[in-house]
Amino acid sequence: MSLDLYLTNKADFIEKQLEKALPANDIYPSIIHEAMRYSVLGGGKRLRAILALAACEVFSGSFEQAIGFACALEMIHAYTLVHDDLPCMDDDDYRRGKLTTHKVFGEGIAVLAGDALLTLAFEELAKMPEKYQVSTEVTIQLIKEVSEAIGSQGVIGGQVVDLDSEGKSIDSNVLEYIHHHKTGKLFIASLKGGALIGGANEEQLKAVVDFGTYFGLAFQITDDVLDLTGDATRLGKPVGSDTEQGKNTYPSIFGLENAQEMAKECILNCHQAVTSLPKTASILGDIADFILNRDH
Amino acid sequence: MSLDLYLTNKADFIEKQLEKALPANDIYPSIIHEAMRYSVLGGGKRLRAILALAACEVFSGSFEQAIGFACALEMIHAYTLVHDDLPCMDDDDYRRGKLTTHKVFGEGIAVLAGDALLTLAFEELAKMPEKYQVSTEVTIQLIKEVSEAIGSQGVIGGQVVDLDSEGKSIDSNVLEYIHHHKTGKLFIASLKGGALIGGANEEQLKAVVDFGTYFGLAFQITDDVLDLTGDATRLGKPVGSDTEQGKNTYPSIFGLENAQEMAKECILNCHQAVTSLPKTASILGDIADFILNRDH
Repeated sequence: MSLDLYLTNKADFIEKQLEKALPANDIYPSIIHEAMRYSVLGGGKRLRAILALAACEVFSGSFEQAIGFACALEMIHAYTLVHDDLPCMDDDDYRRGKLTTHKVFGEGIAVLAGDALLTLAFEELAKMPEKYQVSTEVTIQLIKEVSEAIGSQGVIGGQVVDLDSEGKSIDSNVLEYIHHHKTGKLFIASLKGGALIGGANEEQLKAVVDFGTYFGLAFQITDDVLDLTGDATRLGKPVGSDTEQGKNTYPSIFGLENAQEMAKECILNCHQAVTSLPKTASILGDIADFILNRDH
Repeated sequence: MSLDLYLTNKADFIEKQLEKALPANDIYPSIIHEAMRYSVLGGGKRLRAILALAACEVFSGSFEQAIGFACALEMIHAYTLVHDDLPCMDDDDYRRGKLTTHKVFGEGIAVLAGDALLTLAFEELAKMPEKYQVSTEVTIQLIKEVSEAIGSQGVIGGQVVDLDSEGKSIDSNVLEYIHHHKTGKLFIASLKGGALIGGANEEQLKAVVDFGTYFGLAFQITDDVLDLTGDATRLGKPVGSDTEQGKNTYPSIFGLENAQEMAKECILNCHQAVTSLPKTASILGDIADFILNRDH
């Protein structure tokens, strides 16, 4: 099976699971459920969820055991986007070519939809033992890993520093802090969580975390690079919008060519990180290559 | 020991535990930790935490086992207040006589501080097995109970309907939905969770949930009544501010006297609910009486 097909199949599967996991539109009060579904469904590469399923499969796990975890990750990712897009944060009107949640439902409902998605993610995690036969010990470890990854010293910390550095010129340490936290931490948790469900041992978990660290960095750099070199239609936003908004990016701090080199090096490190893992881990390397070479 | 002293002692104890559970101000990025601490510490009756500890003690549990749970409840309560006070929601400048979080730290940080408190609450819950020797099974059940109670069909659902009914005249069913969800659900979860940690059986849990349902209702009605009859200094807000803001309250829908009668009846039902529980449950009845008779 080609990687493209693998990714499409997995993304479709996750989409169906999310459809089921999210409350139906007609459940009272319907506007919040409409806003939650609008924010999560119908778009996105489902990269975090796919990495979780893939990491689980690398070990002895069947990916079905990791589905609840994967859905929780996508709900969390969606919640961060909904809150980041708010006028009091990045103030974005469009995301993936669609109006942002607050533009459609209003700011109050957008805040609450984000809150509800974060809450539902933890509910999903807590239901892993009954729905997917994950042990209570692993379930609790996952809840700890995820909450640490997305808390005030994780994803939220990254967004705080990002907010604070808007319009300021920052150095590469701050840029790295922002992206390692805002983007990297959730990728790492996705991979580590999947591997935990799959039954990875301590040493294997370490390798998976290394992979995730380089993967997150490569992902972010590529994102920044694509903003300058990509195709507007495929990106779903105008080319050069980061520059226009005065955003600090890898190309703006290191230069475009250096940034491209850095991304390549990160991908090499991704491959290096998984050499000690079972052969089935080659899928992770393939996904990393794909991300570096994507055009949107 | 007088109930007053009991409540003060417990509140002080919880305050100290929260002090420890919240990240220190100087942890990077400090503004989010300052905002989190500002939002949680230095105020509040700690009623949800106290109910959790008390419910735990009613059964064979030592209240120390329920401390992590109690802290999580107060973090959650604080998060709901921070988000509810935002300009896009209830737009309040003051709470308990203090400036609201967004007035001090800005809206973006207030949204993130609320997010971080909610996230930290789940982290605290997940740490109950290692920190407080709560079993992994009970821990997971608590995480499920709490996330359901505060999700889109719980506390958040109540806030959604409250937002939607602002300035409209609503009937008593809608008013009841709002308060049962916005206020009642977290009280119920606090009591049920405490009882679960304490080792209550199914029938006892049912009685505790009944108690919590009437307690939450009595609490809300009293709150509405105090807005009309209370003392501004002790309330920390002007008398009659609900009426001024066109809020739908129990007195505005049922009349002041009827509302006072309803609150009394709820308290009677609270006492009724705990008659089947061990004698130690009298503390719950005492707390209910205290709430009805409070003046702020």
